Amino acid sequence: MTGSATTSRTDAHEPYRALVRPAGARHIEVIDQRALPHARTTRRIDDAEAAATAIRDMVVRGAPLIGAVGAYGLALAIDCDPSDAALVRAHALLDAARPTAVNLRWALDRVRTHVAPLPPAQRAEAAWREADRIRDEDVAINAGIGRHGVGVLRSVAREQGRTVNVMTHCNAGALATCGLGTATAPIFLAQREGVPVHVIVSETRPRLQGASLTAWEMAARGIEHTLIVDSASGLLMQRGDVDLVIVGADRVAANGDVCNKIGTYDKALAAADNGVPFYVALPSPTIDWDTPSGDAIPIEARAIDEILSIAGAAANGERIAVTIATAGTKAVNFAFDVTPQRLVTGYITERGIARGIVALRELFSTADDRR
Amino acid sequence: MTGSATTSRTDAHEPYRALVRPAGARHIEVIDQRALPHARTTRRIDDAEAAATAIRDMVVRGAPLIGAVGAYGLALAIDCDPSDAALVRAHALLDAARPTAVNLRWALDRVRTHVAPLPPAQRAEAAWREADRIRDEDVAINAGIGRHGVGVLRSVAREQGRTVNVMTHCNAGALATCGLGTATAPIFLAQREGVPVHVIVSETRPRLQGASLTAWEMAARGIEHTLIVDSASGLLMQRGDVDLVIVGADRVAANGDVCNKIGTYDKALAAADNGVPFYVALPSPTIDWDTPSGDAIPIEARAIDEILSIAGAAANGERIAVTIATAGTKAVNFAFDVTPQRLVTGYITERGIARGIVALRELFSTADDRR
Repeated sequence: MTGSATTSRTDAHEPYRALVRPAGARHIEVIDQRALPHARTTRRIDDAEAAATAIRDMVVRGAPLIGAVGAYGLALAIDCDPSDAALVRAHALLDAARPTAVNLRWALDRVRTHVAPLPPAQRAEAAWREADRIRDEDVAINAGIGRHGVGVLRSVAREQGRTVNVMTHCNAGALATCGLGTATAPIFLAQREGVPVHVIVSETRPRLQGASLTAWEMAARGIEHTLIVDSASGLLMQRGDVDLVIVGADRVAANGDVCNKIGTYDKALAAADNGVPFYVALPSPTIDWDTPSGDAIPIEARAIDEILSIAGAAANGERIAVTIATAGTKAVNFAFDVTPQRLVTGYITERGIARGIVALRELFSTADDRR
Repeated sequence: MTGSATTSRTDAHEPYRALVRPAGARHIEVIDQRALPHARTTRRIDDAEAAATAIRDMVVRGAPLIGAVGAYGLALAIDCDPSDAALVRAHALLDAARPTAVNLRWALDRVRTHVAPLPPAQRAEAAWREADRIRDEDVAINAGIGRHGVGVLRSVAREQGRTVNVMTHCNAGALATCGLGTATAPIFLAQREGVPVHVIVSETRPRLQGASLTAWEMAARGIEHTLIVDSASGLLMQRGDVDLVIVGADRVAANGDVCNKIGTYDKALAAADNGVPFYVALPSPTIDWDTPSGDAIPIEARAIDEILSIAGAAANGERIAVTIATAGTKAVNFAFDVTPQRLVTGYITERGIARGIVALRELFSTADDRR
């Protein structure tokens, strides 16, 4: 069942999906991202507890994906017990799984708000439909980003008459979303169109999402790619080996400052110093119109174990961690940095590419756009 | 013997030395840097073959240290056989141990040129004396860099009235030299003077010399330090957590461009964007007056295994490597990058601090200075 269900949702262009709800099923299936790139394992999520565990243990990660898994988790809870009390309990359980994930709270609130006015007997169907809508909207946003972004790659390929070299950082890929990803969507659509593309994948210490997730995605789709250490970005741009950079965003402030994975700012500086266009793939829900600038975005400091030890596959294939510093070494592990708007060439949104903050405000000019 | 010899050369301020020739001994002892930071092992080098192996297998690394070990290796060879033929053979053996190490060739040539005119019976003593001189000159250069550089730290401490936060990259430390190191010498002298100093250590992927060597040196000397991933440099400077950066150099071109460990350029960009002074600790032999600019410096590409797998200590203490990407992943591993002169605040040399290339040329203005 699991295997055939997965197959029914994928094809040559979509060899995997981070989240699948098999047609009509009352469960979802997700790729266990902790096992990548060494093993591809699908986990079936049958109840709200399993959804919360998958989010908490980082079986799934990526803001849009976490939101969708949370929404389905609430639908699963309502399947068991559609009462008001159970709804409150399940919302709290899921919300606590990743307290800093804004998308998770947003998706949970959306499902709850949608079903709460209904009689309990109608809530389950409505919750599943709303979770599907959250998933489908994410798929559509990814597709929109891809459609607009691929034009940039197409232009470079046409002007240069050769393969386009795109650098990315971390994983703003299909594995972080329900669809084609954000930073990756233009790349995946370029491949479909036959635009020759080569992706420079920055490994992204400390958690190595570039090496373990983005490189895996490129390999799974047969897209040419080269892995680098994060600090090789500047040199490669100096050498002329990078045509453009596309990164994702965790949050964008109202002035266009971009909060994204640690190291994004360093890449933006190198891009600016070498005249390399620097794009941010930006689903509009990621714009935080209430935060005036990047200075106001709190930067999460994570456990220093992520720096002091590194997980990978041992010679026997077993996944283990090795320590790279002596016990007791002091470290600091900020997860994100802020790239000032002045360093961003363009924001690739589902509505089009905004070259600058004025253009971005114009794309999303109504109050409804800025929900 | 080994233990007491080592002890006789160290004190509270010098808890270790990368290379020791016990008084009057016809051998040297080196720290096996491959075992750091998890174990401190001293290896005794008794013949030229052992010296060549130590260099080739990276028991020792760092340009000045490799040069000194090579010089002693030649002295050891001459101890066994002072003939012209043996001298040629030993020179070739040692020179081949690290073909790209300019200092190694320079030190070997210097010893050979010094002893070749002598009758064979006098060559051994002369070779040991010349190797000692190479070591002592390196110690003196380090001390000079420290003496001039500590003034910068002292000024910051005085102006700010608090601990000075110095960021460094890779290991331009005592482990790379015969003395106090280059980038580390000002830090170590600051500690001796009682200037409060805190070192931000960039881990330095792929080989992690920051995490395994520089952090170890700071711990061994009781200097406060914090380990970061390389790509956190920009954020820390944005936050105001860095007062200055001091890095080493593998080669500096005649226009002041600095070839150093990959990631140095990214740090220099972040420093410039945040008004953080960026210093290069520069022993004058590292200036290549014959190379007009950084564009002319070839960048070594090393084996990609260094990127695809990471070595560390397993839970049982055993040193093993784990792979972080799937087999067959394409990668590129440039060892160095070039930081343009415009991004360098000052060159800390053994003769003083040169603020800009004109000042650097004035410090070393004669042909003899530019040997």
